[in-house]
Amino acid sequence: MSEERSIHEKYMRLALENARAAKGQTAPNPLVGSVIVNDGRIVGIGAHLKPGEPHAEIHALRMAGEHAKGGTIYVTLEPCSHHGRTGPCAEAVVKAGLARVVVAAPDPNPLVAGRGIKILRDAGIEVIEGVLRGESERLNEVFNRYIVSKRPFVTVKSATTLDGKIATRTSSSRWITSAEAREDVHQLRHESGAILVGVQTILHDDSQLNTRLPNGRNPLRVVLDSTLRIPEDARVVTDGEAPTWIFTGSNADAAKRQRLEAAGVRVIETTGERVDLEQVLDTLGESEISSLLVEGGGQVIASFVEQGLADKLVLYMAPKLVGGKDAPTFIEGLGIADMNDAVGLTGLRVEQLGPDLKFEAYFPKR
Amino acid sequence: MSEERSIHEKYMRLALENARAAKGQTAPNPLVGSVIVNDGRIVGIGAHLKPGEPHAEIHALRMAGEHAKGGTIYVTLEPCSHHGRTGPCAEAVVKAGLARVVVAAPDPNPLVAGRGIKILRDAGIEVIEGVLRGESERLNEVFNRYIVSKRPFVTVKSATTLDGKIATRTSSSRWITSAEAREDVHQLRHESGAILVGVQTILHDDSQLNTRLPNGRNPLRVVLDSTLRIPEDARVVTDGEAPTWIFTGSNADAAKRQRLEAAGVRVIETTGERVDLEQVLDTLGESEISSLLVEGGGQVIASFVEQGLADKLVLYMAPKLVGGKDAPTFIEGLGIADMNDAVGLTGLRVEQLGPDLKFEAYFPKR
Repeated sequence: MSEERSIHEKYMRLALENARAAKGQTAPNPLVGSVIVNDGRIVGIGAHLKPGEPHAEIHALRMAGEHAKGGTIYVTLEPCSHHGRTGPCAEAVVKAGLARVVVAAPDPNPLVAGRGIKILRDAGIEVIEGVLRGESERLNEVFNRYIVSKRPFVTVKSATTLDGKIATRTSSSRWITSAEAREDVHQLRHESGAILVGVQTILHDDSQLNTRLPNGRNPLRVVLDSTLRIPEDARVVTDGEAPTWIFTGSNADAAKRQRLEAAGVRVIETTGERVDLEQVLDTLGESEISSLLVEGGGQVIASFVEQGLADKLVLYMAPKLVGGKDAPTFIEGLGIADMNDAVGLTGLRVEQLGPDLKFEAYFPKR
Repeated sequence: MSEERSIHEKYMRLALENARAAKGQTAPNPLVGSVIVNDGRIVGIGAHLKPGEPHAEIHALRMAGEHAKGGTIYVTLEPCSHHGRTGPCAEAVVKAGLARVVVAAPDPNPLVAGRGIKILRDAGIEVIEGVLRGESERLNEVFNRYIVSKRPFVTVKSATTLDGKIATRTSSSRWITSAEAREDVHQLRHESGAILVGVQTILHDDSQLNTRLPNGRNPLRVVLDSTLRIPEDARVVTDGEAPTWIFTGSNADAAKRQRLEAAGVRVIETTGERVDLEQVLDTLGESEISSLLVEGGGQVIASFVEQGLADKLVLYMAPKLVGGKDAPTFIEGLGIADMNDAVGLTGLRVEQLGPDLKFEAYFPKR
């Protein structure tokens, strides 16, 4: 890596740190950070902190004041070209007399991507693109998916033994992972707009699908249940902890549907006998649910994977073995026939959580 | 960690590095390294390099000469107390006037463990035990198992997708892992005294079970085949690349046995209709095979795991998914019923190999 690139990465990393610090307070806007450097000295730092408040570049420019002139501004996302509450950032950068702009990622909206950069280049400013682009895109992975597709970012989550099992042959599954890993799952739920399971999971575990964290936020609970087999006394129906939506097929029993609705559950019919996952995602997106956590079971996960509707995998793995030809794995369904056609994941990261491992990886882009 | 402990670990790490450097040239002796420090200065370094040549401490003492007096000797294994070719090391340490001995691991032989330390303490020398003990024991894991049990150290090896599958539902399995991971498998084979599979693996793949490395050493090939189903034209029978031993049950066809023996294969009958794994391990141990690599299939691995005969797991995992309720996993058999009874592994290590991950972990001690 050239020395110049390494300097750019250093400042961009600081901008990313500041962007990340505002996690949870910028929705529906993305996380963005900015740093202005002049003559080897940091003269401005900014981050987008709240919708309706200035973008990261504006904060940094205000801090820098006259020192911005002739300097370099680092920004984790392409400066905007639209007239929002604070005017287009690209024009503000031009006005401030910056000599150079270093950008991590382009605007995720294909309709406007490149416009901010064009304004800068047209004004004679040097623009360097793609510095730590991957890190910036990861930071806003949910926003980036949602803004483009109007569907939630789909994370598939599971927990397995080292031999790939999610339960023993007798369906015993408590607990595979440690308290540390299970707490991380609750953090995932806390950060998700909705959590989805098949009715089988409700029938088997009577799962509550809530967030057991101090001050934890409960996501919307979504159950796929093509023939409305859900028990009327299931906890997701009766406990009132969070809204529950049940997606069903076109042949569901109308009387049961009415009883569930009377109990406060929203029942949504999709066309076709089996629940259509794309309709589920569209409905959630229309309701401004930007992130969906799919927790199982194996058949539901298989459907998301087979239909190419999953964005990210989060897998907890415990260093233990249960064995068994009939013990279930986390992706059931028919599966792929030829190993050469396996779904290749990218960006694999592994982290230790207590005794367990946490894997994060990305599905091929749809 | 105290400062003193941290200094001890620094020198012990150097001793371990020197021990490790002699890997492959000390069998049947263990890998041992030693460092002598006096007044904050390294005055001697030693390693056991070849059977019949001096132990690590002796080399280090010779290098230190007069400087050993009053110093501290670090040694990765308890100094021996027996009169071998170079005399008991514990006595040599006493004679050299060392003030302190820091030991990583005790002698693995329970009949002599502690005797070397006793000689030192009886002579008034301070002894500190257990510094980086785990690392020293890992270094000699094969030796330690074999010396105690007279059975080989058993490593179970497999390769799976991230969803735990060793093949697709159609048995397609080439290739799950990358060239880097497959080369590592050949290194494992190269380091193993024998490699073992069930006859199913031969029937399915006609595996050659050899080491495809420049200057690679081919291990003894062992096939478990209770009813002698192995084809007479299987490559392990005909290719002459390495000796092949077939363990069979008491009902095997005598004529087929004779034909296989005529082809140069050793056929060994165990008592009982199914092959008795403990008899297999005893037979290999008697033939001075100190390490065995079990490569599958799922039923054979399940037998080793269920009978508590496996020492170590080496698992390669590719960041891909195949799904499928009927796609096989690496441990078949009946499996464990209650998740609380799962086989807990310890000492989990994860390493990146190209795009894949390599896991190493240990089974509970038998």
